[in-house]
Amino acid sequence: MSSIRVGIVGASGYSGEELIRLLVRHPGVDLRWITSRQYKDRTLQSVYPGIGRFGELEFDDLESLEKKENQLELVFLALPHGAGMDYAHFFYNRGKVVIDLSADFRLENPLDYELYYKLSHPHADLLKKAVYALPEIYPDQIAHSNLLAMPGCYPTAVLLSLAPFLKKGWIDPHSIEIVALSGSTGAGKTLDTKLLFSELADNLRPYSFPSHRHIPEMEQQIAKLVKTDSVKVIFLPILAPLRRGILLTVIGSLSQPISQAEAEEQAQEFYKEAPFVKILPGGIMPELRYVLYSNNLYFSIHVLEEKKKLLILAAIDNLGKGAAGQAIQVMNIRLGWAQTLGLIP
Amino acid sequence: MSSIRVGIVGASGYSGEELIRLLVRHPGVDLRWITSRQYKDRTLQSVYPGIGRFGELEFDDLESLEKKENQLELVFLALPHGAGMDYAHFFYNRGKVVIDLSADFRLENPLDYELYYKLSHPHADLLKKAVYALPEIYPDQIAHSNLLAMPGCYPTAVLLSLAPFLKKGWIDPHSIEIVALSGSTGAGKTLDTKLLFSELADNLRPYSFPSHRHIPEMEQQIAKLVKTDSVKVIFLPILAPLRRGILLTVIGSLSQPISQAEAEEQAQEFYKEAPFVKILPGGIMPELRYVLYSNNLYFSIHVLEEKKKLLILAAIDNLGKGAAGQAIQVMNIRLGWAQTLGLIP
Amino acid sequence: MSSIRVGIVGASGYSGEELIRLLVRHPGVDLRWITSRQYKDRTLQSVYPGIGRFGELEFDDLESLEKKENQLELVFLALPHGAGMDYAHFFYNRGKVVIDLSADFRLENPLDYELYYKLSHPHADLLKKAVYALPEIYPDQIAHSNLLAMPGCYPTAVLLSLAPFLKKGWIDPHSIEIVALSGSTGAGKTLDTKLLFSELADNLRPYSFPSHRHIPEMEQQIAKLVKTDSVKVIFLPILAPLRRGILLTVIGSLSQPISQAEAEEQAQEFYKEAPFVKILPGGIMPELRYVLYSNNLYFSIHVLEEKKKLLILAAIDNLGKGAAGQAIQVMNIRLGWAQTLGLIP
Amino acid sequence: MSSIRVGIVGASGYSGEELIRLLVRHPGVDLRWITSRQYKDRTLQSVYPGIGRFGELEFDDLESLEKKENQLELVFLALPHGAGMDYAHFFYNRGKVVIDLSADFRLENPLDYELYYKLSHPHADLLKKAVYALPEIYPDQIAHSNLLAMPGCYPTAVLLSLAPFLKKGWIDPHSIEIVALSGSTGAGKTLDTKLLFSELADNLRPYSFPSHRHIPEMEQQIAKLVKTDSVKVIFLPILAPLRRGILLTVIGSLSQPISQAEAEEQAQEFYKEAPFVKILPGGIMPELRYVLYSNNLYFSIHVLEEKKKLLILAAIDNLGKGAAGQAIQVMNIRLGWAQTLGLIP
Repeated sequence: MSSIRVGIVGASGYSGEELIRLLVRHPGVDLRWITSRQYKDRTLQSVYPGIGRFGELEFDDLESLEKKENQLELVFLALPHGAGMDYAHFFYNRGKVVIDLSADFRLENPLDYELYYKLSHPHADLLKKAVYALPEIYPDQIAHSNLLAMPGCYPTAVLLSLAPFLKKGWIDPHSIEIVALSGSTGAGKTLDTKLLFSELADNLRPYSFPSHRHIPEMEQQIAKLVKTDSVKVIFLPILAPLRRGILLTVIGSLSQPISQAEAEEQAQEFYKEAPFVKILPGGIMPELRYVLYSNNLYFSIHVLEEKKKLLILAAIDNLGKGAAGQAIQVMNIRLGWAQTLGLIP
Repeated sequence: MSSIRVGIVGASGYSGEELIRLLVRHPGVDLRWITSRQYKDRTLQSVYPGIGRFGELEFDDLESLEKKENQLELVFLALPHGAGMDYAHFFYNRGKVVIDLSADFRLENPLDYELYYKLSHPHADLLKKAVYALPEIYPDQIAHSNLLAMPGCYPTAVLLSLAPFLKKGWIDPHSIEIVALSGSTGAGKTLDTKLLFSELADNLRPYSFPSHRHIPEMEQQIAKLVKTDSVKVIFLPILAPLRRGILLTVIGSLSQPISQAEAEEQAQEFYKEAPFVKILPGGIMPELRYVLYSNNLYFSIHVLEEKKKLLILAAIDNLGKGAAGQAIQVMNIRLGWAQTLGLIP
Repeated sequence: MSSIRVGIVGASGYSGEELIRLLVRHPGVDLRWITSRQYKDRTLQSVYPGIGRFGELEFDDLESLEKKENQLELVFLALPHGAGMDYAHFFYNRGKVVIDLSADFRLENPLDYELYYKLSHPHADLLKKAVYALPEIYPDQIAHSNLLAMPGCYPTAVLLSLAPFLKKGWIDPHSIEIVALSGSTGAGKTLDTKLLFSELADNLRPYSFPSHRHIPEMEQQIAKLVKTDSVKVIFLPILAPLRRGILLTVIGSLSQPISQAEAEEQAQEFYKEAPFVKILPGGIMPELRYVLYSNNLYFSIHVLEEKKKLLILAAIDNLGKGAAGQAIQVMNIRLGWAQTLGLIP
Repeated sequence: MSSIRVGIVGASGYSGEELIRLLVRHPGVDLRWITSRQYKDRTLQSVYPGIGRFGELEFDDLESLEKKENQLELVFLALPHGAGMDYAHFFYNRGKVVIDLSADFRLENPLDYELYYKLSHPHADLLKKAVYALPEIYPDQIAHSNLLAMPGCYPTAVLLSLAPFLKKGWIDPHSIEIVALSGSTGAGKTLDTKLLFSELADNLRPYSFPSHRHIPEMEQQIAKLVKTDSVKVIFLPILAPLRRGILLTVIGSLSQPISQAEAEEQAQEFYKEAPFVKILPGGIMPELRYVLYSNNLYFSIHVLEEKKKLLILAAIDNLGKGAAGQAIQVMNIRLGWAQTLGLIP
């Protein structure tokens, strides 16, 4: 198998680091270029001790962009929201495969960037070219696009665990309520007093309610799944004293009576060819440790007949299926490889 | 101020330990008797280093029950569920004030003990004498009863944060959904592999869904608040990697349109004389650290107009307002003292 | 008992916050003034929910220094190192009792400030007036000084656990090696990537070796205890995934053969009137939880006869006996009150 | 490459689980048999969700030992100390390669088992056949033995970081003092109140001082390295609130003056062909996160000239280089494969 030449723009955050750790184990990748202003000229090995293969590669900065681009075939962007729009445009225009881990190309409506991210999108035309790269839902589009917008961590868990039921019309899309717990790496390597160990340890902190930036993304995608115009969800995220992982609860109203067995069968059927999506049977509930350091999503389904509700519990690693792991799964699909290549299903 | 002579039956669990730590600081208490089979004949100081006052008191076992009872005026029972029913009966019949931290006298219907606790209540007649000792709701009953059944930790947070709205009829009592996060001490000092540090650290674990033992207690009390026959709630508890504390979300359907301001005013009015209940204004959400090592409940109210829902976030320390702190508050009320005596409001 | 009027300069750090929490419980204190640039005009209650008494007090800034000073009798300085030297001078000159929690007046030699703190001390003359306020060692000097330099957290634990043996000449002062574990609040509320939850959780990080700033303080004080000119210690501090607490190991060479019993007796005798210092007998070792949220120091003594060494394990709460608790103990001594007033011994 | 047929006896503890996780990624292994009384008849996938390859394999018990042995070529024993001695004997006698993760064959003197493990070794004759399987020190012996006794986690870190200097005679072997921090998985999946989350979180707990069971192992191996009869070390282990990892400090007296550069060069030279041993240069100190989930040992060397001491800081993952990772490294060497096969160096 020949290798693909890969670059990572913004390799010093938690998603970037995880991406490198996974690429080190990937048999089809030749990592050629990593950028970080902060770590410029330092070796991977010195910044991430114990990283393994590619340890001697040095961080570069973006000054050498023009010089380096012709050595690359595929570029991961792992920059803060808003910071990578021009680089996506640059690489896309030069025919590279662009896999963007930020929110920069997730939303279809440019106005949502003004509303939720307080910025005017400089390449709004590209939004139409971008594919929302949720691999279990849009594999064909992923296979044929050069601009792959990786879903957010929360939307990944919410959409994948709801999709089998939304597609069937079994859940009222306007009834969805989500309470989500997340580890601290979800908030990035950001210098913020609230993210200090002394502030988060022994603590639980709800945040960004009622207007977390992942809400428009979830609403847009739920609306697409049920082919409706507009959907509004309730979404409450809570920071827990953990480094990694998301465990969330979704409650929705049943549109029609279904049994526990029917619900489980539908999910099994829907994901019968999805190696990373695991449905827990018969009331077994996912724990966070089931998914840490993996690209798996585990979820359990609970039909509450008396209440006419469906409750779902879903767990992912925010850096795995919620970011870097899923980005590699998408790369595999785009390049025609087995989607599990370099990942443990 | 003269002191009251107090005993604690079952002083070796987490609630018992917290009770002792709080009584050490209480100016009106003379702690005379503490029991623990495990620590028999050891001093308080040797079991709980740094305990302060009463450090020389030795743990006794329950063999000396008959001999000791005449030295006591008030007894806290901090035993596992089911283990203290006979002792409650014993002390109550001898005219002592009994404050029971277990579930043994919380439920009105003896059949619920068979259903949820798998035991036949040996003193079912006493259930009618017991007061459900939620101090902000039943202060008068507490002041006049000798059998005080302390509420569970989850019901305390759920009931206190819902009561102002249930009483007004603003929430449909049949619509209530609760997602609750709890620290490990809520599960007791129980030898269970699932409670090992190696199993809970870096983990989140949903448990006892859909039939946690606090559910009948919540349902019975909600039904009483709204004067209806029967209520069913959805209650999902999750263990988080924390020693102490509960943070929970309650979502209910509004029965009528109310504004954010009306909701906050109603809560403020309802608790205007409640020193331990704090309403956070204007969208500020409680964090767990606001309540750790205190007897406070903090909650925030979020009217979701578009959704016709009320969302509440509430935080307590499960060993404070959820157990030992509230037991002392109840003792203070029962003895005619300021309810804040020995507690920091 | 009449109250003393107290101010806190720099009340927004972890030591300042702990000081307030303890003063709220102290029966002899009227807290009149708290400063914080960051929290200016906010109430204590809004910044530290659940604080209790004084909750309505508003944070001030230091502009009103001149106006406020005549309302105060005693001032705690809880500022970063170097930031409070002028304020100490200001209040001291106006006859106030100054209790400084920083390192600004701990060292006798002004040159040490240049060496270890990279600053020239603007009030080097005051260093001679300052008392090193370690209450178990220098109670008389504390009782008569208006400039009280609170010891650092590490030196407090090291000096108190070594003093009984140094004073007897049983340990070679030049042989002392210390490995110390500390929680994150010891590093302050500092915006530093290394202090993020994501960096410290699941981690252990040695730091500031071999030149931690507490070293000159320990060396100076050890030299004083043994009346020698100069002492050099080995000191290795390690950050552990904890908010609070210090557990440290001290190993020293025995200058003469002593038995385990002799060592324990000497420690018991040395601290027979010290309510906060607890010696664990017969091989029982301190755990961190023995001291959290208290002003206690627990230590155990292990004579290793074959090795001719003494090993000591000592635990304190860095915010308690290591900072705010000890500051209150010192205030009590200075004002002629019982040293345990407002503290739980 | 053809696969080797492997069994794991005792696959339900933390070392057994980690072994499985690593074997799943190993290209040369066909896992055929896993035993656990507790999980009998359950699939790997159901016990360890997300395990990947081999997920359908069922746990067996040891009743079928005779039937299964002829299907196996290599057996890992991951049983509690003392429980696997007969199985080692059984498989060894049938010509299998036995890799034992317990202490059962680490010590040369049968009397040490009586002294430290309170048991009489039933196969004391086998102790002479066993190789102490520390791969960087005894690679040739490992390559030719069928009874491989894996070193303990603490001894692995201590011996590897000291060996370069002991071999040179630069350190007095009788002067060695070790303070070691460990995560909770080092204590196993043992039902012990002291290992509950509620007891270890927010805590640090020294234990097994002065007679931890790893002491005779360290002393025996240090004595062999310096070719002396007997060595005594000081070893103080402390449990920290972590699941995984060991960070330890070793201090020894220099036998002769050496410089920092000489010490680092000697270590680099000594380990120039050791892919998993990393020496941090110039005062950089290892953090635990450098080694988590890896088979690496990181250490730093600090010559304290004035004190005539050498201080070493070393970090490993107790389940990686301290147990399962190292066992796979040893398997690789024994089978003539690259020692890094299936591991990330």
